[in-house]
Amino acid sequence: MVDHVKDISFLEDTLNFWKKLNQAQRSFLKQAIVKKQFAAGELMHSTAENCSGLFLIHKGQIRAYIISESGKEITLYHLFERDVCIFSASCVMKNIAFDVNLEVEKDTQAYLIPTAAYRKLSEESLPVQVFTNQLMASRFSDVMWIMEQALFTSFDKRLANFLMERSVIEDSDTLVITHEKIANHLGTAREVVTRMLKYFQTEGIVSLNRGTIEILDQDKLNRILE
Amino acid sequence: MVDHVKDISFLEDTLNFWKKLNQAQRSFLKQAIVKKQFAAGELMHSTAENCSGLFLIHKGQIRAYIISESGKEITLYHLFERDVCIFSASCVMKNIAFDVNLEVEKDTQAYLIPTAAYRKLSEESLPVQVFTNQLMASRFSDVMWIMEQALFTSFDKRLANFLMERSVIEDSDTLVITHEKIANHLGTAREVVTRMLKYFQTEGIVSLNRGTIEILDQDKLNRILE
Repeated sequence: MVDHVKDISFLEDTLNFWKKLNQAQRSFLKQAIVKKQFAAGELMHSTAENCSGLFLIHKGQIRAYIISESGKEITLYHLFERDVCIFSASCVMKNIAFDVNLEVEKDTQAYLIPTAAYRKLSEESLPVQVFTNQLMASRFSDVMWIMEQALFTSFDKRLANFLMERSVIEDSDTLVITHEKIANHLGTAREVVTRMLKYFQTEGIVSLNRGTIEILDQDKLNRILE
Repeated sequence: MVDHVKDISFLEDTLNFWKKLNQAQRSFLKQAIVKKQFAAGELMHSTAENCSGLFLIHKGQIRAYIISESGKEITLYHLFERDVCIFSASCVMKNIAFDVNLEVEKDTQAYLIPTAAYRKLSEESLPVQVFTNQLMASRFSDVMWIMEQALFTSFDKRLANFLMERSVIEDSDTLVITHEKIANHLGTAREVVTRMLKYFQTEGIVSLNRGTIEILDQDKLNRILE
């Protein structure tokens, strides 16, 4: 249950259907919502068995990814403050026939609308359905972008793009990340990442150290993307 | 406009929201719907400029695919009788930020719910929103499957799977298709397809002739997928 003024105003701001609910639906939702904490490194959700409901991120960082039988991964998108995770409620949606894994990258606080509550509201409220639609369309677009990248874009561009994004997320030119982790984000093998990073290093774009990658020349990195 | 009994009963059967509309909405929809014909080989829809509305396939076969700047293609899914094409109405949906191309593979008859009509109904009808949601979830699942295949599955399995699917669609063991076309379906180069087909031929699985591929051994083809 949430009833603190701060919580309610955050929910009002981020769930665009909130103000369109009637009084009874709003009280029902306040009663149903639960605050949750997740520690960095935890798995928030994996596979369909675990259908807890809709998570709204208050603070933190979540990575959504898929994984093959042989353990190969590819990152689909990231969730930050004010983002809503729809696939932790995929059992509410008919026709969703795939699993998305969620890894907590930074300590995360989230609001959870449990499955049963979300289902009830979906069945009676047009604005809630519209919200679900917009969310799904937005995630669908993210995934299409990743797919186009993975299938159509050369690996130097993908890696340059990853390093730049990461540097923005971390707000730093020094990235603390292993080549293995990068390979998992981009759906490739560690050796492929190492080879390209070494090439970037000979070009003076990055400097490689144990466990860190320092971006030396943002301009050159940018030029790879042209 | 549609008013023939046969048309109405087809629409009732395939659009699960039809019976949940009120009298006024139903008359409005009947007035708005247009019957369309497309010839094999035509492009039904490409890029966002062309947002004609929701197509419901009455008869025919459509291929949905994406294409890279350099012309590389990959097939996302096929639409057959009773399928609905949602991306030809993508301007109705917020947050859809990608383009899907639609190629007419066999002569096609379709009902079109024009964009403006579909938008109006979406804004006032919960069942229409639910329908959109289910459609989008279903296409999203198709795309996730294709992506997992393209990223995680070895090419022999993907090609074997393609040949089997095609043989079911065409209801024949002799497929009339070029290696170039197969490459476009699977998002790879023609040479890669030719090399694997030749390997299948030496294994006695297929027989290659000018412009056709004959499947000689369905069992062996099946075993590749295990």
